[in-house]
Amino acid sequence: MTNNKMNQLIKEINQLLGQTIPHSSLGTDLEDSMRYSLEAGGKRIRPVLLLLTLDMLSTDYKLGYTSALSLEMIHTYSLIHDDLPPMDNDDYRRGKLTNHKVYGEWKAILAGDALLTKAFDVIVNDANLKDSVKMNLIKRLSFASGHLGMVGGQTLDMQSEGSAIDLNTLEHIHHAKTGALLKFAVMAAVDISEPEQNVADLLETYSEHLGLMFQIKDDLLDVYGDETKLGKATGSDIENDKSTYVSLLGQSGAEEKLQSHTKSAYECLEHLPKQYDTRNLEYVIELFNNRES
Amino acid sequence: MTNNKMNQLIKEINQLLGQTIPHSSLGTDLEDSMRYSLEAGGKRIRPVLLLLTLDMLSTDYKLGYTSALSLEMIHTYSLIHDDLPPMDNDDYRRGKLTNHKVYGEWKAILAGDALLTKAFDVIVNDANLKDSVKMNLIKRLSFASGHLGMVGGQTLDMQSEGSAIDLNTLEHIHHAKTGALLKFAVMAAVDISEPEQNVADLLETYSEHLGLMFQIKDDLLDVYGDETKLGKATGSDIENDKSTYVSLLGQSGAEEKLQSHTKSAYECLEHLPKQYDTRNLEYVIELFNNRES
Repeated sequence: MTNNKMNQLIKEINQLLGQTIPHSSLGTDLEDSMRYSLEAGGKRIRPVLLLLTLDMLSTDYKLGYTSALSLEMIHTYSLIHDDLPPMDNDDYRRGKLTNHKVYGEWKAILAGDALLTKAFDVIVNDANLKDSVKMNLIKRLSFASGHLGMVGGQTLDMQSEGSAIDLNTLEHIHHAKTGALLKFAVMAAVDISEPEQNVADLLETYSEHLGLMFQIKDDLLDVYGDETKLGKATGSDIENDKSTYVSLLGQSGAEEKLQSHTKSAYECLEHLPKQYDTRNLEYVIELFNNRES
Repeated sequence: MTNNKMNQLIKEINQLLGQTIPHSSLGTDLEDSMRYSLEAGGKRIRPVLLLLTLDMLSTDYKLGYTSALSLEMIHTYSLIHDDLPPMDNDDYRRGKLTNHKVYGEWKAILAGDALLTKAFDVIVNDANLKDSVKMNLIKRLSFASGHLGMVGGQTLDMQSEGSAIDLNTLEHIHHAKTGALLKFAVMAAVDISEPEQNVADLLETYSEHLGLMFQIKDDLLDVYGDETKLGKATGSDIENDKSTYVSLLGQSGAEEKLQSHTKSAYECLEHLPKQYDTRNLEYVIELFNNRES
């Protein structure tokens, strides 16, 4: 895959995100505030991963549009709520003012609620997917984003701040908090394409390794990253006394773990039937391994 | 219908609500905080209305259990978020401390998010409903509770506080804020039972009149209600300088409007085919008309 292909998909996703929230029918700026955060940028790695997995499975990747949108809506609502004063209290994200700094706290809460609700709305109203596929997608999404997935992981993470946790708890947090949505990205493509079970299993394991790679890399970048490239200050984990892969394993231990998951992710792709062209999903591994921001 | 029948349904709903959130798998008290608000009481009028409508349509009302649960989860999450300091900043609800006063603000935000997500989860995982019915329910729920429904209405209501609004805007607010979920209660039963179109239409209109009755009565009680029976202080609308049916139409104008919607609601039931026993739904009209709390 070239960067051009990736940029093309990001462009398509951004266009879709720009069109998906209609203008207000009730005359408030609720929809503006939803759109503000949806369009505030970001790497769109989750929706891109979803579309690339569909493409690899020889299924028209456009069938993944609504799942990709839905996934980005869930991710975006979680950022809006995480940024609120009682949570992380962040004024800026990706160089732009956070939702509540622009629209006020109460509207940011409601914009998050509305985006979360809309995520289910876009899948259920997809005219191109079978009912049974939509049911599987909604089951997967509600599990991945709810109290047993993302929200549960965020709770455990917040609750663990300032106290020492072990590696096991750390993996629990990230499995739920960031891993669940990355797994959804890959497995939504599986739900839509419905390949053989062994393909589904290998892709699921692939997505789990990606999730852990993502988090280990995050922890490494927070200590050793380049602030200019990251677009934010490093050292926040140490400052907040957070247990991370680096604090628990040291730099070389964390690097080793990252390489081990990278290797395992590659192996999943190697074991897929030869008919599949896995180069784009290999590229995603490289991206997760080498990213500087 | 006797009060016994109603109390029996409320008991069943409360039992279901007590069982529906599993104990935490991640070792946090997120699920406790979800359960705290779900079990904090309330009249359960929405789920009861749903089950009674199914019963009237000669469909096993237990097929409505998941929709009833889901509806009460949406209602409950909206109360948790509405009570937060940036919204209504309430310390008590129904004589009990609000969620954020017990669990803290950040967990109350997450508990609300998790309940909203769970609402879709319980419907999609219902083993007794056809896929096509579940799709219709999820379409209806995401619309009724999202930016074009409850959340949109809440936004317009908050945005209108302290400024004079006309009757038209007031109806827009309540149509979306409280009407949408009451309509869901009735129309979820229609989705499950799938009666003829004219029955569906009459029930939809019935639910719209109920929604307006509910709100007009609320406004009347806030001025002329009995604080002991209400369990809260009256006069909050005047204190908050809120436009209401009473402030816009006066007491007798509001009473007149209430009676007009009461009459129209009855008429909808009268026009239903004679095979239906509408006594329980008539009882709901009386309940809405005569309630003192």
